[in-house]
Amino acid sequence: MNSIIEVLLSHRSVRDYEDKPLTDEQIEMIVKCAQAGSTSSFIQAYSIIGVTDSNIKEELSKISGHEHVAKNGHLFIFCADLYRHKQIGELENKEVLDSIQSTEKFMVAVIDATIAAQNAAIAAESMGLGICYIGGLRNDLHKVCELLEIPDYVIPLFGMTVGYPKKINDLKPRLPLEHIYHHNRYQSDPEIIASQLNDYNKTIENYYHNRTNGARRETWTEQISRSLSKKVRTYIHNFVKEKGLNKQ
Amino acid sequence: MNSIIEVLLSHRSVRDYEDKPLTDEQIEMIVKCAQAGSTSSFIQAYSIIGVTDSNIKEELSKISGHEHVAKNGHLFIFCADLYRHKQIGELENKEVLDSIQSTEKFMVAVIDATIAAQNAAIAAESMGLGICYIGGLRNDLHKVCELLEIPDYVIPLFGMTVGYPKKINDLKPRLPLEHIYHHNRYQSDPEIIASQLNDYNKTIENYYHNRTNGARRETWTEQISRSLSKKVRTYIHNFVKEKGLNKQ
Repeated sequence: MNSIIEVLLSHRSVRDYEDKPLTDEQIEMIVKCAQAGSTSSFIQAYSIIGVTDSNIKEELSKISGHEHVAKNGHLFIFCADLYRHKQIGELENKEVLDSIQSTEKFMVAVIDATIAAQNAAIAAESMGLGICYIGGLRNDLHKVCELLEIPDYVIPLFGMTVGYPKKINDLKPRLPLEHIYHHNRYQSDPEIIASQLNDYNKTIENYYHNRTNGARRETWTEQISRSLSKKVRTYIHNFVKEKGLNKQ
Repeated sequence: MNSIIEVLLSHRSVRDYEDKPLTDEQIEMIVKCAQAGSTSSFIQAYSIIGVTDSNIKEELSKISGHEHVAKNGHLFIFCADLYRHKQIGELENKEVLDSIQSTEKFMVAVIDATIAAQNAAIAAESMGLGICYIGGLRNDLHKVCELLEIPDYVIPLFGMTVGYPKKINDLKPRLPLEHIYHHNRYQSDPEIIASQLNDYNKTIENYYHNRTNGARRETWTEQISRSLSKKVRTYIHNFVKEKGLNKQ
């Protein structure tokens, strides 16, 4: 096992950071690594916003419901971004709006932004920093766009807090490899899946039991079905269209 | 600069591989690293299909238009996947379909799958292997789903070829950092963007000129506007909905 694989396999989210900001050099290196990742047909359809303004951070912390969004070494916001490409259409006098508004290009932009984000995460972790993705920003993207002055054709997808870890969590056991890795054909047999989930539920029940000294007793399928039975962020379907993406 | 950052910054896509398959140990380690990445609220909404069947690889190669999809060390297909979660709803007797069909959860699944994919890419590159994302599978997702027996609530997003590089391409210059990295607020001024693009166009024109001994003379904005002015993969909007995702 090489040192890079060691970093990848030892990932855990960090939600409690020392009060020590990243240096400009660290931030620049993290962004450069984000940019070095693959991009679909060289489209580079994403942007990153670094937030240091403490008022904005407080507001984003309230939206997401996480204190560490205000208290960290640095806060990045990753956006799917086709605004620059809209400008390019005008500069080159080409009709590009049909493409930009397509679900295909929305997917491309989400994928591009996420490749960049995961490279940023690994770069940060390679420096001994911790990270946490912040999907909670999607609780109120109207407000996020207002605070960060985000224009049409740009969707903030998630934040990422980065910093010096104050507390290191346990590794969280993932689904066994054979649940998510298929050979040549997708394995969709409900009985096999039910049996696999049953085994994994025991692993997760033990994990929560040990982590909480017996206070939390929940299986993975209980957790996931509880979470999915709540209708949340239903506004996002229309929000993305209003921003000009995923329309056709 | 640490050795992980060196790997991240030296990424280039590889499209020409030695005829040498990955070992089962290598494949397993790459998938484990994929799984170790962050996942939104522990949802693990993705699957990976490893393709070794040469007939299927030939078909996928034709769909994508890339020879190296048939000829590589290994071929992975990354899917946004909420099929398992649909099963969980039935097992736990919870109404989860409204959530699964939402644009919010479609985004979550695309993000989860891409985080896993980029971890896989870096794990492979750390072993001295090359990789290339294959968005070209989206030329015909109906056929991809038929070949790989992919059920509803699962969208194949892209493939990834992995293997021992026969040829190493030059590094491709990315947008200057200040184009994609914003401070506290999104910088949307069209004049500033036009000026930034103008500078970058010179970089890219030189890059193509040097790489092709003068045969290719194209700026970035010419390339991007040419590509976006073509309507491609317009079926995907309805395809994703028919699969049960991104509907509401």
